[in-house]
Amino acid sequence: MSKNANIRDEARVVKGLPPAVILCEPQLGENIGTAARAMANFGLVDLRIVNPRDGWPSEKARAAASRADHVIDAVQVFDSVEAAIADLQFVFATTARSREISKPVHGPDEAAGIAVAHGASGNRVGYLFGRERWGLNNEEVALSDAIVTLPVEPEFASLNIAQAVLVCSYEWRKTANGGELPFRLDEETHPPAAKEDVVRFFEHLESALDTVNFFRPPERRPHMVRTLRNLFQKAQMTDQEVRAMRGIIAALEKREARPRKPRGEKSIDTSESES
Amino acid sequence: MSKNANIRDEARVVKGLPPAVILCEPQLGENIGTAARAMANFGLVDLRIVNPRDGWPSEKARAAASRADHVIDAVQVFDSVEAAIADLQFVFATTARSREISKPVHGPDEAAGIAVAHGASGNRVGYLFGRERWGLNNEEVALSDAIVTLPVEPEFASLNIAQAVLVCSYEWRKTANGGELPFRLDEETHPPAAKEDVVRFFEHLESALDTVNFFRPPERRPHMVRTLRNLFQKAQMTDQEVRAMRGIIAALEKREARPRKPRGEKSIDTSESES
Repeated sequence: MSKNANIRDEARVVKGLPPAVILCEPQLGENIGTAARAMANFGLVDLRIVNPRDGWPSEKARAAASRADHVIDAVQVFDSVEAAIADLQFVFATTARSREISKPVHGPDEAAGIAVAHGASGNRVGYLFGRERWGLNNEEVALSDAIVTLPVEPEFASLNIAQAVLVCSYEWRKTANGGELPFRLDEETHPPAAKEDVVRFFEHLESALDTVNFFRPPERRPHMVRTLRNLFQKAQMTDQEVRAMRGIIAALEKREARPRKPRGEKSIDTSESES
Repeated sequence: MSKNANIRDEARVVKGLPPAVILCEPQLGENIGTAARAMANFGLVDLRIVNPRDGWPSEKARAAASRADHVIDAVQVFDSVEAAIADLQFVFATTARSREISKPVHGPDEAAGIAVAHGASGNRVGYLFGRERWGLNNEEVALSDAIVTLPVEPEFASLNIAQAVLVCSYEWRKTANGGELPFRLDEETHPPAAKEDVVRFFEHLESALDTVNFFRPPERRPHMVRTLRNLFQKAQMTDQEVRAMRGIIAALEKREARPRKPRGEKSIDTSESES
């Protein structure tokens, strides 16, 4: 995606230490790379891998990481989960299967809240993800503080590692920067029009419609006027939009020099009529 | 992932009509398939594609969809965005770039709230995603009601279509089923122990520690006792866990028939000593 010059500063601010991501015995280099890319999108950079099946470095991982070279270059490789999490103070184990383990279970949003709170205190947090085929074993889960599971459709739970990393990373960043988006509706340069301008537009429109006998029968006029006014209010028009609408009505008014033919009557020529 | 017999029923219940996903001129069949897989994980099934570059059907798409055949089989192909969204009543356009367009901008979570509200009223909603390389054009955005953008790290915004579909689908389901997870900590079959059992464990532990003169100097005892009690309270032990701890202390007490050697003194044999 192209760099956006109009990024809001608030979107850049993230609270506290970002968590590490630990992949336990990842089988496919491509998955490592896609996980790295997912992390980079949400500002995570600390990727650790335990006993990657195909070793490290991995060109497949680098290729799949797209532009996330900064994450790939900083990958740390360990030969055990214990070593990979040694310096961490709170570890989430992600799993799709209930294990009857005495451990709290959180969704990624709840986990993000915990991770951000720890990070704000300077505590180091990690998210542990398992193998493509069968996730984490119970001993690995026992090394963690809490379980994270995603609210998937139970009949079709088949998220891969990188997808789980993506969702957890997304939730972390959303919490860590208070949900600030890179851009918002540009309320500063395109504010809504003031009501006096909006009402003047309404009156202009209604007057033009009166001229063409739009409101028939006359008893319906108040209801139709309210309908039109409510319709346009929903558009929350800016000054520019109000001016555009008034220009449209003015243009239509000029064309309407030839009155509309009532049924069964001859047309009336006027000197202002256009061809 | 293996089917889990212990899925909570609440995780299956989803409120209202699920949204459609529309991919505008997708270039890679693989991305279509990964999007389908992402959708299926979160219970979305209505995938529509507009002018797929490599046509349809697509074996690459089916392969990448993994088990999401039900989504692939139901894909509808259109030759314009207008046709693809014709029956929808509210459309989100996903984009990473600010466009100075007079249109509300939401994060995926806010969008999910709107989508679920519409779905609960029976209104048909869709999420429109753009081309791999350059997203949606302004005319396509103008066909939508609101913009969705993800809270990415501005310096590294490079989510691909399927990743954006994943996050939007995840947020939708999370909102639609009230955040219910497939499983939780099994509080019914493994409830926390009652305090009288916990306190009996504490007293057992403290008595065992008294026997081995652990609390020295004696003035420190109250502080150490509180420290240990607070520590174990954090574990929120179940009955099973309390019994396990009491068994551990009992075993250690039996072994401790030989008192610990104070510094500089000879060991004292007793008839209960073990080798």
